[in-house]
Amino acid sequence: MTDPVTTGDPTPARTTMTCAYDAGAHHQRTAIDLVLPLFLRALDECAMPRRGDSFVFVDYGSATGFNSFVPVHHAVSTVRRRSGPETPLCVVHNDQPDNDFSTLFRQIIASPGTYGREPLVFAFAVGRSFFGPVVPPGFASIGWSANAVHWLSAPPHPVEGDLWFRRPADSVDTAFGRRARGDWVTFLEHRARELRPGGQLVVTMVEADENGAAGADHFLDRLRDVVRERLASGALRPQEVARMHVPLYYRSEREIRAPFESPDLAARFVLAEYQHGTLPDPLWAAFEQSGDAEAFARAHVAWQRAFSEHALFSVLDGDRSPEKGRALADEIYEELRQRVADAPEGACCTWRLALLRMIRK
Amino acid sequence: MTDPVTTGDPTPARTTMTCAYDAGAHHQRTAIDLVLPLFLRALDECAMPRRGDSFVFVDYGSATGFNSFVPVHHAVSTVRRRSGPETPLCVVHNDQPDNDFSTLFRQIIASPGTYGREPLVFAFAVGRSFFGPVVPPGFASIGWSANAVHWLSAPPHPVEGDLWFRRPADSVDTAFGRRARGDWVTFLEHRARELRPGGQLVVTMVEADENGAAGADHFLDRLRDVVRERLASGALRPQEVARMHVPLYYRSEREIRAPFESPDLAARFVLAEYQHGTLPDPLWAAFEQSGDAEAFARAHVAWQRAFSEHALFSVLDGDRSPEKGRALADEIYEELRQRVADAPEGACCTWRLALLRMIRK
Repeated sequence: MTDPVTTGDPTPARTTMTCAYDAGAHHQRTAIDLVLPLFLRALDECAMPRRGDSFVFVDYGSATGFNSFVPVHHAVSTVRRRSGPETPLCVVHNDQPDNDFSTLFRQIIASPGTYGREPLVFAFAVGRSFFGPVVPPGFASIGWSANAVHWLSAPPHPVEGDLWFRRPADSVDTAFGRRARGDWVTFLEHRARELRPGGQLVVTMVEADENGAAGADHFLDRLRDVVRERLASGALRPQEVARMHVPLYYRSEREIRAPFESPDLAARFVLAEYQHGTLPDPLWAAFEQSGDAEAFARAHVAWQRAFSEHALFSVLDGDRSPEKGRALADEIYEELRQRVADAPEGACCTWRLALLRMIRK
Repeated sequence: MTDPVTTGDPTPARTTMTCAYDAGAHHQRTAIDLVLPLFLRALDECAMPRRGDSFVFVDYGSATGFNSFVPVHHAVSTVRRRSGPETPLCVVHNDQPDNDFSTLFRQIIASPGTYGREPLVFAFAVGRSFFGPVVPPGFASIGWSANAVHWLSAPPHPVEGDLWFRRPADSVDTAFGRRARGDWVTFLEHRARELRPGGQLVVTMVEADENGAAGADHFLDRLRDVVRERLASGALRPQEVARMHVPLYYRSEREIRAPFESPDLAARFVLAEYQHGTLPDPLWAAFEQSGDAEAFARAHVAWQRAFSEHALFSVLDGDRSPEKGRALADEIYEELRQRVADAPEGACCTWRLALLRMIRK
């Protein structure tokens, strides 16, 4: 599950892995700082497994793992404090089948921030959509999802002239809004089954305000402009550009709260905390310190490429070789890099976040 | 864990994926037929989880999953019969971090033989060596390992002039034999911890006879000859060829039985069944029917490439680009294909197998 807020899985662009990881890590540290107080309360309060069973933490939308290393370390400390040294912990990283699980497992073995050297902590992966079952009923004590559920299961229709659907004000009904509502209900229904009674779920996602603004909705505009120019020049074909779509939808508070008004879900899931947060752009902050526009442009484009390349360049016509697709992507992201370096102002992305803690009754 | 008997993980040669899978599936069907009676007894006898807990099947050395789809289907039937429809099953596929887990998860979702559409059956992956812990203590009811434990954790020393270490007679002590013994003890120690009391483990591996012969020890000879010629022509460099190694060791019955003579392990693990099997070459059988030497050569080389490419071509010098490495591999396997097509006789590989069933006390 790639993500414009935290970056994420660089599949299939393995060559961008390191910078994608780094760029994502910058954003992610800030996002985790914001949600950590909720997560620590969830850890303190959640139901523990029976003696001899494992404590299970499920990371929904894991990418290559960096968004869960810090929370897993906290989970280990809390479980050791609450339950002693002999309770095993299982950490289940869930993401789409195309996620780069090899990088995930290599990071768990060898990255400096890994939890993989903790005794009695076991890492698993599940490669399937979280809009379906991921683990057995009652398996998990804690669920965690960092900036993943604003990705839709699929766009309900193509969007002409843009790379994503820019939502209207909260009062306007759209097919995208309906899809986002259905996806959110589906996500919560499955998590309600997978958490043991007394288990807790902590979720962050980008949030839109009443006017539909999420803070950085211009984030794809420059890339869209470059794509349009490549369409005009004939380098990209009309049917290819028509298929290019980053399927994101940022829900409003009303939309996020809506499922909890259903008596059926409310009987099983309590929305215990709902906070708003602001995620400043860490790349921009570094640029303001250094004044190095070239470095900012490189980091900004590495971040954009990591979450958008698969959505935009895996849909080229079948007669394009992988090498040709890569060359087109190289050229387009390089053009974007030059434009950002020439005019960094306007590339800053400050997001509005929803921070949620839910309790399984 | 790639494998010359069953083929296996085609990482990183994604383009050979389909044929690798097909070639491996041919071999695997025959191997599974041989070991299935032992596995069905293990399923009937193994300890079940407590009510409400999941039945856990761990596949040690899964590659992309095809070697466990048939046994998982049997596990589902037996658990449904012994424990009713409400017991969830967890299937844990374990292999090296570099394994192609995306293909594994895609096969589980969509391949014709998948168990992925069974209700209450959940697939997991664990990307780390099985010469270490894979799942929590007492987690598994059934362990399964099909033609994986004859891969060593690492070769103890380079082997000059060949692509693997051809073991001597059983009576001769070697560093490879000592490494193989240590690895086998390590494997069993970890499995004894991971199986619940009353759990069972079924293992197949290639077995050497008293003279050290496993039936198809010539399997890499032609590929070695092509590599030597590329060394002589300068296409491959001496230090590259020195690093090319497929780290296999086929244990004798004495070596396979040895760990169970240790009182410590014997107190926890009983070797309940030890059978010998012969795995005929399914590609050769098809060739005998069809007489199509070209088709045989293609299938034979797809099988060889799937298990050997990573070991042989990931060790090229750092100044070789991935494209150059791929081109060298293409050329060498194409040369091998031509030779096999010109003289198929001698390419038939009939393996000797050990079939084991163990009970955790």
